Amino acid sequence: MGKNLTSRAEDYSKWYNELVVKSDLAENSGVRGCMVIKPYGYAIWEKMQAQLDKMFKETGHENAYFPLFIPKSYLSKEASHVEGFAKECAVVTHYRLKNAEDGSGIVVDENAKLEEELIVRPTSETIIWDTYRRWIQSYRDLPLKVNQWANVVRWEMRTRLFLRTAEFLWQEGHTAHATREEAIEEAELMMNVYAEFAEKYMGVPVIKGTKTESERFAGAEETYCIEALMQDGKALQAGTSHFLGQNFAKAFDVKFANKEGTQDYVWATSWGVSTRLMGALVMTHSDDNGLVLPPQLAPIQVVIVPIYKGLDQLDAISEKVEPLVKELRDKGITVKYDTRDTHKPGFKFNEYELKGVPVRLAVGQRDLANGTFEVARRDTLSKEIVKADEVVEKVVLLMDEIQENIFNKALDYRKGHITEVDSYDDFKKVIEEKGGFVSAHWDGSAETEDRIKEETKATIRCIPLDAKEEQGKCMVTGKPSNKRVLFAKAY
Amino acid sequence: MGKNLTSRAEDYSKWYNELVVKSDLAENSGVRGCMVIKPYGYAIWEKMQAQLDKMFKETGHENAYFPLFIPKSYLSKEASHVEGFAKECAVVTHYRLKNAEDGSGIVVDENAKLEEELIVRPTSETIIWDTYRRWIQSYRDLPLKVNQWANVVRWEMRTRLFLRTAEFLWQEGHTAHATREEAIEEAELMMNVYAEFAEKYMGVPVIKGTKTESERFAGAEETYCIEALMQDGKALQAGTSHFLGQNFAKAFDVKFANKEGTQDYVWATSWGVSTRLMGALVMTHSDDNGLVLPPQLAPIQVVIVPIYKGLDQLDAISEKVEPLVKELRDKGITVKYDTRDTHKPGFKFNEYELKGVPVRLAVGQRDLANGTFEVARRDTLSKEIVKADEVVEKVVLLMDEIQENIFNKALDYRKGHITEVDSYDDFKKVIEEKGGFVSAHWDGSAETEDRIKEETKATIRCIPLDAKEEQGKCMVTGKPSNKRVLFAKAY
Repeated sequence: MGKNLTSRAEDYSKWYNELVVKSDLAENSGVRGCMVIKPYGYAIWEKMQAQLDKMFKETGHENAYFPLFIPKSYLSKEASHVEGFAKECAVVTHYRLKNAEDGSGIVVDENAKLEEELIVRPTSETIIWDTYRRWIQSYRDLPLKVNQWANVVRWEMRTRLFLRTAEFLWQEGHTAHATREEAIEEAELMMNVYAEFAEKYMGVPVIKGTKTESERFAGAEETYCIEALMQDGKALQAGTSHFLGQNFAKAFDVKFANKEGTQDYVWATSWGVSTRLMGALVMTHSDDNGLVLPPQLAPIQVVIVPIYKGLDQLDAISEKVEPLVKELRDKGITVKYDTRDTHKPGFKFNEYELKGVPVRLAVGQRDLANGTFEVARRDTLSKEIVKADEVVEKVVLLMDEIQENIFNKALDYRKGHITEVDSYDDFKKVIEEKGGFVSAHWDGSAETEDRIKEETKATIRCIPLDAKEEQGKCMVTGKPSNKRVLFAKAY
Repeated sequence: MGKNLTSRAEDYSKWYNELVVKSDLAENSGVRGCMVIKPYGYAIWEKMQAQLDKMFKETGHENAYFPLFIPKSYLSKEASHVEGFAKECAVVTHYRLKNAEDGSGIVVDENAKLEEELIVRPTSETIIWDTYRRWIQSYRDLPLKVNQWANVVRWEMRTRLFLRTAEFLWQEGHTAHATREEAIEEAELMMNVYAEFAEKYMGVPVIKGTKTESERFAGAEETYCIEALMQDGKALQAGTSHFLGQNFAKAFDVKFANKEGTQDYVWATSWGVSTRLMGALVMTHSDDNGLVLPPQLAPIQVVIVPIYKGLDQLDAISEKVEPLVKELRDKGITVKYDTRDTHKPGFKFNEYELKGVPVRLAVGQRDLANGTFEVARRDTLSKEIVKADEVVEKVVLLMDEIQENIFNKALDYRKGHITEVDSYDDFKKVIEEKGGFVSAHWDGSAETEDRIKEETKATIRCIPLDAKEEQGKCMVTGKPSNKRVLFAKAY
């Protein structure tokens, strides 16, 4: 298998598209904008799901499931919400097909028109808050902390595998609280959970912050986010957590009797991450040879490739390898021993490099004679010869080392790509030539934000949580500003 | 909490509907025919999923994800398939809403009409076989064994929670094989996996068999099924596995180069179980006091209720209970220690009975003095006093005992409800008065099958795999028959 992969330097965007398909993560389907997530890609998503689900449960959340369809009238109840989602949604209008009378095939049965159109959920705040009205009567019913794993649909016109698809998979948490403070605390907690997941498991460093008003979720009072930086200098929003105030409680009339016995509207949050994380994972670590996966999320952590001629040699190798496979599995490591005789070792090396398997062991006749294995790391592409009785220890060590190394590499890249500027000219120059995050003063107005976006395509990715107080002047208008915000071009 | 549950004898159907809602499994939503699966119900479904997923992976299957939408033209490609699913489907015709010009709210934007309507998947054979055409070229690509966990929609007119809903959750396996024999073997294997899951984990005894032609899946050459019997004497189809022949390969032109180098169409299977299993679980074991859950699937296996006045007494109890909780958890048992002071012990006893928690431990002042716990079983409603240092052993034992007991109870009920009859008069009498499965000779014709269904509402549930060869005469037409089939009224 030749990889024939476009290099990142040549065309980053093409490199990404080719890599996702060639490494068997996903492909486009016959349905416009909808992807097929292939078994290898889905196995990574399953690992992400399992870890996130564990973290959600550890922070007191339960899973539930709400309807796929949202009646049109529900969507309209929260004014800015419908504004944000009505323009790109799939609308169900009929519930039956029939044979065409002229025999030309099957057609929509006009006698089966719905009284009210149903929207395929773009997000579930409305259907969930319609439900919460039945679930919440008293402060004893609060907090209510529910998560849902589901598919959602947003009718995007320009789609890209994982990054922007009409249908995508995600989780959406929806919580209800008795006080404003508790809801804000929850929204911040979940931003921190996402950040921990991104950094510890995906190996993707992120910046935590809040969105400006114009970048907020439709219906939110505050949107917290984690922002990552891709290798082409563009930012990617990897997860958001919203403080929704009492907006949805008011729209759906969800009140509770507080401890004093008076009625009050409930405070809300929602938060989500999606299969978009797969795109972030690919773009953060991978190289011109293919995927580079963090050991924590790799479906295969170690592959063992035997180099042999004829079954006798294979048998001799297997005698050494099989106990090793067992030992590694006992340590909780996922191992594949690839004995296919339909493909040559070189083909296999290429394949597992493309698929980002963190560690590859190879063993041939000389290794057998010397009692050694060749151990190759995917992240550094380095190889060394290791004695058979030290291989398990080495592999266990490498799992942590590779996880740490790819995180640090991404962190170094990001550190080198946060530029402070004080003039709009410098800003444009950095955005255009270097990319990355640009830290600058802004006057806090939507007008200035819009103007910058129009003139440079850069948006405010976030107001970092750790931004220091610093007197300055807006780089565009010269008006006063007391902290820097982060700009970037973004996915 | 008073249970106020209708008894099974009074109105079985009402009992079921009330129980599902009161025990917090699920409820109807504001969207016609779509349910909300509540956290407690979803926790059971998650346990089902986890076990089934493990069994699928152990039998060599991988998960993937395919689009929610199916272009109308795909559905039409397999003739009997479209016939079976076109009459009850959700049709997406537009991709945008807009503000009405007369200010009356939001309406469908007629300028955003799809060129081709999209069907919300009722099942995914068509979209998956359209994909498999790209994945399969040679015998080396076979077998292809993929499963998908997903939501599907069938526009049912009369719905009931879990048993028949417009949207439901399920898994659908779709496999591709080089030979007819291998595909049949796979279809049978998955029927056996389903049967093992139903019996060992759900505690629901099932009969394995094949469907008659008129009850087969639309597009299948053979449908294997597992059939369970509910406490009201009605049967419930709990899972199906289809041998699809080359029907979908031909409809979607999926050919492979076989070992001899010639092109051949691929052989297919598909198989699925759904949230309908939740209905089967509830209806098989539960009683007039509420749910009875098998320990293998219970979200809470043991609940501990302290009986106390004042915090001093609670502290003294907790000192005994907390190490016990830890010990039970170390044994892999899910324990809830319910120290809520907002509810009385009697309320809690009722609540956990309603929710089917297999074992309840209670501990009050006398128990504290005597060094004992009261141990109550949900399945038999029996109680005994157990010494504190024997509680863990007792609970571990009870997990197996309860699992076995509820299975045996259901098996005994079924054994008492399989009646052999040789005349149509007897048949009608048994179907009407006793219910259950009726084993009778049938001439093999769809005409006779239809007539029986029309006259008695009973259908042929299956031709049991273990039916013995036996010369007989069709109870209706007197024509020859060489084995008995199983009839029943069914959900």
